[in-house]
Amino acid sequence: MKIIEGGITAAKGFLASGIHAGIRKNRSKKDVALIKSVVPAQAAAVYTTNLVKGAPIPVTKENIKNGIAQAIICNSGNANTCNANGIAVAKEMCALTAKTLGLDAEDIVVASTGVIGQPLDITPIADALPILAENLSTDGHPAAEAIMTTDTKAKEVAVEFEIGGKTCRLGGIAKGSGMIHPNMATMLVFMTTDCAISAEMLQKALSGDVQNTFNMTSIDGDTSTNDMAVVLANGLAENAPITAEGEAFDTFMKALNTVTVALCRMIAADGEGATKLLECQVSGAADPATAKTVAKSVICSSLTKAAMFGADANWGRVLCAIGYSGADVDVSKVEVSFRSVAGEIRVCKDGAGVEFSEEIAKKILLEDEIFILINLHSGEACATAWGCDLTYDYVKINGDYRT
Amino acid sequence: MKIIEGGITAAKGFLASGIHAGIRKNRSKKDVALIKSVVPAQAAAVYTTNLVKGAPIPVTKENIKNGIAQAIICNSGNANTCNANGIAVAKEMCALTAKTLGLDAEDIVVASTGVIGQPLDITPIADALPILAENLSTDGHPAAEAIMTTDTKAKEVAVEFEIGGKTCRLGGIAKGSGMIHPNMATMLVFMTTDCAISAEMLQKALSGDVQNTFNMTSIDGDTSTNDMAVVLANGLAENAPITAEGEAFDTFMKALNTVTVALCRMIAADGEGATKLLECQVSGAADPATAKTVAKSVICSSLTKAAMFGADANWGRVLCAIGYSGADVDVSKVEVSFRSVAGEIRVCKDGAGVEFSEEIAKKILLEDEIFILINLHSGEACATAWGCDLTYDYVKINGDYRT
Repeated sequence: MKIIEGGITAAKGFLASGIHAGIRKNRSKKDVALIKSVVPAQAAAVYTTNLVKGAPIPVTKENIKNGIAQAIICNSGNANTCNANGIAVAKEMCALTAKTLGLDAEDIVVASTGVIGQPLDITPIADALPILAENLSTDGHPAAEAIMTTDTKAKEVAVEFEIGGKTCRLGGIAKGSGMIHPNMATMLVFMTTDCAISAEMLQKALSGDVQNTFNMTSIDGDTSTNDMAVVLANGLAENAPITAEGEAFDTFMKALNTVTVALCRMIAADGEGATKLLECQVSGAADPATAKTVAKSVICSSLTKAAMFGADANWGRVLCAIGYSGADVDVSKVEVSFRSVAGEIRVCKDGAGVEFSEEIAKKILLEDEIFILINLHSGEACATAWGCDLTYDYVKINGDYRT
Repeated sequence: MKIIEGGITAAKGFLASGIHAGIRKNRSKKDVALIKSVVPAQAAAVYTTNLVKGAPIPVTKENIKNGIAQAIICNSGNANTCNANGIAVAKEMCALTAKTLGLDAEDIVVASTGVIGQPLDITPIADALPILAENLSTDGHPAAEAIMTTDTKAKEVAVEFEIGGKTCRLGGIAKGSGMIHPNMATMLVFMTTDCAISAEMLQKALSGDVQNTFNMTSIDGDTSTNDMAVVLANGLAENAPITAEGEAFDTFMKALNTVTVALCRMIAADGEGATKLLECQVSGAADPATAKTVAKSVICSSLTKAAMFGADANWGRVLCAIGYSGADVDVSKVEVSFRSVAGEIRVCKDGAGVEFSEEIAKKILLEDEIFILINLHSGEACATAWGCDLTYDYVKINGDYRT
């Protein structure tokens, strides 16, 4: 297993493009992405649990229920959510994409991200499709850029691994930044692989993985209406198809997890207004559910997030977030440390403060990546959650997002 | 029922004082409050559900389990939480207070608020107690000031009402500001009344009321370790004691609710960094639980809070928060309006946007008190929740709270 260059087009037989179509006013921002497999691919997806769902969600769900898809069309700048004509527009996006690429509309994945409640004009997308089709190439970067909203960096990663002597690749792109608190699904994540795997096992791999990755990531506690993570597997690596659990499936799961964890970290680090990536590692929990609940509660605590922004070793807020998490924790056993490249410092043991150097703590917390280490000393289970600090810029970005 | 001047000492037979004892460094900030009833009072309280509990919580719980208390001692500047000697210090605060006032230590309510995890030095409190006792008067304002942390305003309110021809009074003070997301209990709230009511009925009134008041208030989603709401009833109004449900109990509940709603609004409006009070009124819900879940989800949404700070009528974020609330809502029936003294504007009907004047919406949202009105059009149940906007100053206050 090794990390390689590229993202959505790293796997054999996947092409992508991204351009400015005119949905966003800023002409320097790309706003439509197209991703295509040269052959039909097995498809799996997970979706937001928000009851308010973007129109693309049910349309995509319907299209891939047979486990097959061949292209993804995605726009940024408008979520196509809470619009009376939303479903019709999402279906039209699929129909136009299919027509342009010579495919069936039922083999298209459609996604949208951006402002909620403003009708999405199909015209710029219709006009852009021929150009997008013409631009399709093995350079996945323009597509990664085109799905960005308030993201400051494109998010791409890919890995190479071997199954049955065949070299496989799996890569992905993601859009994160705000309204990020996935629940059973995630922000927009598109992944592709040339590994041969059945749609059923692909779905099993994805559904299992997101519980420990995207569902453990939170920027602001707001679960988006348009969250979607999709993976397409076109089988061009020519390995013996994975159709059951076993060694090959485990290898695939590991490859998938490497990509999803990398994307989670990128999404968290580039959270709206974020200056720091926070990774909360909980160990010593009685069971995995407890570990997850605690990790996620800490990563979601506004007070902890603000303290990290201020490089303040205010561990009482970490304890507070553990205490209200809802998990059954013996507080008197809790140990907390902060770690970064600048060092590690223990601030709490047996649920009470220990003496520590504020100076060293400050130095550790001034770094860009902070690990909040919690040992519950009550068992063997672990969990990790990712988030970011709460900053002035988060407020600024969201105080006037539409204007 | 009428609102009257005063707060914690509005009711007959209650005295209070507050001074700077030296727990807080800033000498202009009072940090210890003392409240006393001239006769033993019936007592009721609700407490935080956070598993990490301030040491005063179990001590107070034990002291009032017989339903009787006569004095309250409370310090700010240090929460006396997550300290190895916390319980001993909280008990010592009771013992010293009792000794100074000539009471039993078991009749003392103790509370602390401030930084978590720093041992609380008893000395300044011991030194302050004789002065606090000497200063006891019918002016409740110094006590209201002494329980403040990052609050910018003292929070006091009182009402006068009649039971069986006798004039009763009920007043209270509160401390809010940060780490405010009460769950089954609340921030620090002390209330007093001269109404004669049994401890059992007093507890029933308080426990019932907080479900619709303090538990529906949120500043930052962090449930404090030290939340406590206490009410003392000394019976000096000489009404026939309330010992069961009925007309008199209803009148008392109404008086209590008038005081608690007023305190909730004060707490929300003075949330850390807040520039606006947000009141979310949900109507047309299928049942009260749905109404409450929706109202609280909206009031807790960071994105909605930031939009309100920016006076941005971004109603899609309100819909989003309704959708992820966990309540079973028919999104296609939802109607949303914004209201303030500047007017009212409908922004969403049948779950989709309606045309509205952004100019008028901006004017409405630039006011200090914003009502977010949600009609679910699915029943008769209603709920109200209180919160505040998310601002630069919240981040500033919490980025360097300890330093």
